Amino acid sequence: MARQGARIIPVLMSGGSGSRLWPLSRERYPKQLLPLCGERTMVQETALRVHGPAFADPIVVCNQEHRFAVAEQLRAVGVSPRHLVLEPAGRNTAPALAVAAALAVEADPEALVLALPADHAVLDVPAFHEVVAKAAALAGHGYIVTFGIRPAGPHTGYGYIQVGAAFDGHEGVHVLERFTEKPCRAVAEEYVAGGRHLWNSGILLAPAALLLAELERFEPAVPAATGQALMRAARDLDFLRLDPAAFAAAPSVSIDIAVMERTDRACVIPCDLGWTDVGSWSALWDIASKDADGNVTLGDVMLVDSRDTYVRTTDGKLVAAVGLESAVVVVTEDAVLVAAKDRVEEVKQVVTRLKADDRREHLEHKRVYRPWGYYQSVHDGSGFQVKRITVYPGRSLSLQYHHHRSEHWVVVDGEAIVTVGDEVRTIRANESVYIPREAVHRLENLGPAELHLIEVQTGSYLGEDDIVRLADHYGRS
Amino acid sequence: MARQGARIIPVLMSGGSGSRLWPLSRERYPKQLLPLCGERTMVQETALRVHGPAFADPIVVCNQEHRFAVAEQLRAVGVSPRHLVLEPAGRNTAPALAVAAALAVEADPEALVLALPADHAVLDVPAFHEVVAKAAALAGHGYIVTFGIRPAGPHTGYGYIQVGAAFDGHEGVHVLERFTEKPCRAVAEEYVAGGRHLWNSGILLAPAALLLAELERFEPAVPAATGQALMRAARDLDFLRLDPAAFAAAPSVSIDIAVMERTDRACVIPCDLGWTDVGSWSALWDIASKDADGNVTLGDVMLVDSRDTYVRTTDGKLVAAVGLESAVVVVTEDAVLVAAKDRVEEVKQVVTRLKADDRREHLEHKRVYRPWGYYQSVHDGSGFQVKRITVYPGRSLSLQYHHHRSEHWVVVDGEAIVTVGDEVRTIRANESVYIPREAVHRLENLGPAELHLIEVQTGSYLGEDDIVRLADHYGRS
Repeated sequence: MARQGARIIPVLMSGGSGSRLWPLSRERYPKQLLPLCGERTMVQETALRVHGPAFADPIVVCNQEHRFAVAEQLRAVGVSPRHLVLEPAGRNTAPALAVAAALAVEADPEALVLALPADHAVLDVPAFHEVVAKAAALAGHGYIVTFGIRPAGPHTGYGYIQVGAAFDGHEGVHVLERFTEKPCRAVAEEYVAGGRHLWNSGILLAPAALLLAELERFEPAVPAATGQALMRAARDLDFLRLDPAAFAAAPSVSIDIAVMERTDRACVIPCDLGWTDVGSWSALWDIASKDADGNVTLGDVMLVDSRDTYVRTTDGKLVAAVGLESAVVVVTEDAVLVAAKDRVEEVKQVVTRLKADDRREHLEHKRVYRPWGYYQSVHDGSGFQVKRITVYPGRSLSLQYHHHRSEHWVVVDGEAIVTVGDEVRTIRANESVYIPREAVHRLENLGPAELHLIEVQTGSYLGEDDIVRLADHYGRS
Repeated sequence: MARQGARIIPVLMSGGSGSRLWPLSRERYPKQLLPLCGERTMVQETALRVHGPAFADPIVVCNQEHRFAVAEQLRAVGVSPRHLVLEPAGRNTAPALAVAAALAVEADPEALVLALPADHAVLDVPAFHEVVAKAAALAGHGYIVTFGIRPAGPHTGYGYIQVGAAFDGHEGVHVLERFTEKPCRAVAEEYVAGGRHLWNSGILLAPAALLLAELERFEPAVPAATGQALMRAARDLDFLRLDPAAFAAAPSVSIDIAVMERTDRACVIPCDLGWTDVGSWSALWDIASKDADGNVTLGDVMLVDSRDTYVRTTDGKLVAAVGLESAVVVVTEDAVLVAAKDRVEEVKQVVTRLKADDRREHLEHKRVYRPWGYYQSVHDGSGFQVKRITVYPGRSLSLQYHHHRSEHWVVVDGEAIVTVGDEVRTIRANESVYIPREAVHRLENLGPAELHLIEVQTGSYLGEDDIVRLADHYGRS
């Protein structure tokens, strides 16, 4: 419930790809869309953290590939974004924030924006709200406030903020000296010992207008490009689709480098939020609750004499671990990762190789989300493929046909309205229908419950791209 | 091609369960039925090792649960067993050999039997044939000859044979002093250092009549029970099904203890055959060819900086290993094993726990073999299940019906003759048929090629035991 006139507009930046969390995180369904630390997904957790009377409805900036999943996940937890902005391609944080700040100013010239990466965890939410309140007071005086996390250890996977002198008249606030890139181990240890460095959480709170002004001053190419991208943006259902050519002209630069390093309006609040970027499998092991031997298990796992190990399995597939120490095992429908826990940064290399080999396992899961629901390839063979299809209540697939495949649908739960050619029929559970090659057809779920069906495709070519859409409720025809 | 009148009748003992090779080896489809060391399965390799002019057609003794798979696998490599004997339950090697020896004597009172565990590997087949020839000459003089393997190291997973003095007048043959159980590490090291101990390969060659006579003399309860079991045995298709009650009365004892320890006709030939019992995942790693980092990979595997590791994956599921050392990873359709390579003996504990928990993953694979072909559960959900069914050419399922489920069949390759009630129809690829609950039906493949279909079952109960067989070609109705 956003308060009318609340000045803080949260900006959820959902741009990451989370490749170190492969095979769970995939390019088309990355980290922020996954329930990594609990029941809810990261983007849901982030949205709910800033959902309440102190906050306006959020502006969400995400990759256009993720739009239906982001929209559906926010809807599911009752969050209605003020804008759901689609980036045609990621250009780092400065362009994303320039767009969000411009939209915020448009709504309220005095708005404060609270920029939040959508794929980080904050375990101490009350502490977070306290710091937000303190930061909002400072921002009200014309400052750009960053949230610096007191380091729990010499982490080499984080950037650091060097703090300067105490900020005049504001207890617990410091001058922001400079940002540093991820350090090597020795440097990280110096940082922690010295007590003058904080982890860079990527969270900041600032007057939207000030952020825009500083961007104009230090990196004018960014607001020039994003202004154009916004001006030529297309409304597409509930989405604001930035103009691809204009947005591509924006320099790919972080807000830290574009503004924070140069402005004299920056300050930093050192804080303890139980913050982590959940950037790797070992980070997930770190924050999870463990058994007496230090193991974390999710799903159907059997451990024999194993220690300090993280095992996660999906789809009811059993994992047995025998005599493991400090290992990571992640099992998904089509890929398995087994890694030494102190080597999980190198999971990135797997993703890089999968890309280079032109494979699919880094790109998407076997279950693929669509605006109408999802499908999952469950089996295939020479000349055929079996899919499970789920259609949400009230949704429908496009009116379509295929050049190369026929389809047999068997409804296993719910009720389908099926159009084939000129005929419209109701197909109930335990009934089936045949869609010949080239036949124009549509599948609809007008009922109150999910519709589940098994589709058996046969044909010489079964690729997803053999689809001719004649009409579509989701702007895809 | 067995030579008419060849005196050596191989006896393939296919009784093991291979639980240390879980999850690939399952109770209903164990180690000997798997292609663990190459293209062919262990039982095929064993059969082909004794297939040729020097050998008669083999007698095969197997668990009745495995009968169709054993028969099909031998047929596939052109081996026609003289007898395929079904044990109602395993009773160790003495009763199995008593049955085989009796059948051999019946065929030829002077036959020699060559007993071979069906789940061991022999890498040097020419050397094996040389030892067989030497052993046959000795057996012709009335001796029971065991094959003792010169130990490659202090293995604690094998039994040992202590060799005595040289055997008068036979070079390279020794008196058999005694058998020992699997030793502890220190004892195994003494054995190897002392040079008087050999690995017990379980292979022996002896006159069938002598073996029977010695059993009569030392363990008469065995031939008494197996004689009855044979007398009351039932012919069932190509199988000889031992009488369960009679066979159960046989003491469960090994031929080593029943005869070899007591007889004065035993001798041992020390040999180097490249023999291994392939008893564990580390044994498979030992004998496989490795990459420069000592890794063995089978299937779709991506290694990042890993060493001395064994990774095996089926069904096209990708495995990525990052920073592993001396690990074992085995991926199957429904279960994944990850183990430290020096702890693989403990895989047995996983199987024990699965049994105790009344689960299925130790019992059978998702793909289940039947006399007519196989089926594989590929997906399930609330109230439905999807199976892929393959029917071999010329085979047919039983005439049957189900009380609780309906079935939709979509043929994806081949041609099915489908009986539903009084109607018989031909269903071709891309055609489907519906089998209502309670409808009597049969599926046949009369064509020259395999028939593949997708079955979608719906119903309140989908267990395999909801089947009423009215007629069956394989003696199961």
